[in-house]
Amino acid sequence: MVTECDQVLVRATDEIKLLSDICEIIVKIGGYKFVWVGLTPEHNTGTVRPVAQAGYEHAYLDDVDIHVPGQDKEPVSQAIVTRKPQIIRRLDNHPVRAPWLIEAVKRGYNAMISLPLNEDGSIYGTLNIYSVESGVFDAEEVKLLTELSEDLAYGIVSLHTRAHGRKAAEDLQDSYKKLHMIFEQTVNALASAVGKRDPYTTDHQRRVTALASAIAQELGLNDEQVNGIRLAGMLHDIGKLAVPSEILSKPTRLSEAEFTIIKTHPRVASDILKAIEFPWPISEIVLQHHERIDGSGYPQGLLKNDILLETRILSVADVVEAISSHRPYRPAYSIEYTLEEISKNKGIIYDIEAVDACLRLFKGKDFRFE
Amino acid sequence: MVTECDQVLVRATDEIKLLSDICEIIVKIGGYKFVWVGLTPEHNTGTVRPVAQAGYEHAYLDDVDIHVPGQDKEPVSQAIVTRKPQIIRRLDNHPVRAPWLIEAVKRGYNAMISLPLNEDGSIYGTLNIYSVESGVFDAEEVKLLTELSEDLAYGIVSLHTRAHGRKAAEDLQDSYKKLHMIFEQTVNALASAVGKRDPYTTDHQRRVTALASAIAQELGLNDEQVNGIRLAGMLHDIGKLAVPSEILSKPTRLSEAEFTIIKTHPRVASDILKAIEFPWPISEIVLQHHERIDGSGYPQGLLKNDILLETRILSVADVVEAISSHRPYRPAYSIEYTLEEISKNKGIIYDIEAVDACLRLFKGKDFRFE
Repeated sequence: MVTECDQVLVRATDEIKLLSDICEIIVKIGGYKFVWVGLTPEHNTGTVRPVAQAGYEHAYLDDVDIHVPGQDKEPVSQAIVTRKPQIIRRLDNHPVRAPWLIEAVKRGYNAMISLPLNEDGSIYGTLNIYSVESGVFDAEEVKLLTELSEDLAYGIVSLHTRAHGRKAAEDLQDSYKKLHMIFEQTVNALASAVGKRDPYTTDHQRRVTALASAIAQELGLNDEQVNGIRLAGMLHDIGKLAVPSEILSKPTRLSEAEFTIIKTHPRVASDILKAIEFPWPISEIVLQHHERIDGSGYPQGLLKNDILLETRILSVADVVEAISSHRPYRPAYSIEYTLEEISKNKGIIYDIEAVDACLRLFKGKDFRFE
Repeated sequence: MVTECDQVLVRATDEIKLLSDICEIIVKIGGYKFVWVGLTPEHNTGTVRPVAQAGYEHAYLDDVDIHVPGQDKEPVSQAIVTRKPQIIRRLDNHPVRAPWLIEAVKRGYNAMISLPLNEDGSIYGTLNIYSVESGVFDAEEVKLLTELSEDLAYGIVSLHTRAHGRKAAEDLQDSYKKLHMIFEQTVNALASAVGKRDPYTTDHQRRVTALASAIAQELGLNDEQVNGIRLAGMLHDIGKLAVPSEILSKPTRLSEAEFTIIKTHPRVASDILKAIEFPWPISEIVLQHHERIDGSGYPQGLLKNDILLETRILSVADVVEAISSHRPYRPAYSIEYTLEEISKNKGIIYDIEAVDACLRLFKGKDFRFE
């Protein structure tokens, strides 16, 4: 019986199922008449709540309410209060006249044992076993049953610990999701801050992000890389918040001095972003987004192999969005004209693969800016 | 023996300790000569690695290398390959002449059983038991030992599952910490973005944050509330990025028209921030930070009870920092003059408790701006 119980304990995943299985085994293999497990309310007061049982019960637990602390030497409450097994070898000639006893005798229970279940020094319930034979529960039997109740208590504590662990992991998962949401929202707020003076830039960043992410996917980059490009796209023009509005919205071509100021924006953005330890080289991608593969770009005049793949993708998306949008100094060009422009410069100032992927998106896969 | 093993299994927390305890029990209570557990390399190839043992071994495992797949009907490798217990009831008259057999007989092992350990259908090791008596391991004994090996395998799988759960929880904890770090860095980047045109504002936000957090702590607010005030302080003036630089840095008093533009900054900041679902009312606190308890503030002219406690604290810190700092249109005032100013207006335009806490910090607790 103890072996069967231990095998159930080793495999237990659910507390009430475990307690029920143990009650079943004790009745079926141990040959006892009735077995139940009661859990005690907190602080050792109140009613003992039966949670599992097996054997001949005939509404015993409905007829008998057991409270802690108990009266009339009631053994279940005494096991909880004294923290020791309570054994009654003969119920029929017991001096006390109380419902717990009268109802037990009525049902043919002639001996009983109530074993406390201990969790870290506090009793949280009892295992209660009733026998038809009086005079049983000798020292040897009590020793075995005490071991069994200790194994059961240990098994239940393990289940509790595991359940708490799972709960903690779930809570952490929820916290992570919430934090991730407010992180994304904060990145968005940073992306939109520049739009408070220059609304075009916010829309531009959003559309460039959509196209750059699509090009990255078209080129077979993995989700992590696409995610990095997405964040870089969202933030690539935030440096424009350091450029005076009158330059950003000037309706005529910029002077050389004004263009010099405009050209500071990748560096300004990269300075803001480099303080964030993103798992992608966001500040580097953003710093390079006006570099061109022939070295004609700014601020560093890098050549193709020194420009990050992410940047080469972002640059194509940036240029396509800019050419095809209305600007203060000119109307929007058609998407056909725009694609013609990047095709002409493919392999000269724009990355060949990024341009080809972009053309496939617009021509074969119906990509459109929202 | 099986009962003792199961009790160890119920309480197991460490795999190697569990395997060693099981080997000990089998030798001590089962009375076998030598017991060991070998774990198999992945994909059923390579050397079987002994990880636990008990009983008389005399370097048997050093003298015998066991590989999978094995040769000469070697039972350990066969148990792994066939996934079935391998029993040899007489080693002494076994037809094969191989080291695993010769060395076993030398040590007085006369019978053996090798039981596969199964994890989700794949064999990851064997439990190997040697007896001095030949002819043992009858059907009944094999049944018991098979049950034991199944319990052991189940127990080990549980330990693995729990270890994986713990590892996953630790990894998630690490991810959470990293994400929290980049979230804080992104909030900082948002706070510092305004400083790209107006460096004073970034320093101002930082110093106001330090004082507002200190006032909140002085007032006994809990860590969560202090954290909300800290974030609101970091971001309260980001709306100034929509105010032209020439107004922000104007060396003379502002015209009414210019002041009207300045007064948009709480609303601009709150518009940027309300898209972030912070666990604190950050955008509300920021929107209100120029409200005054007599209703003389802006943008809404709120009265005391309509102004958030966090805002009433932030406002005092904001004013104290502003008065005591150098501004383009006037030099800095001394901290004595500044504290005199807020004392005079205590309960009139500034919250009484926030002012009192601020005075205690500067006068009694040596608070100083960095």
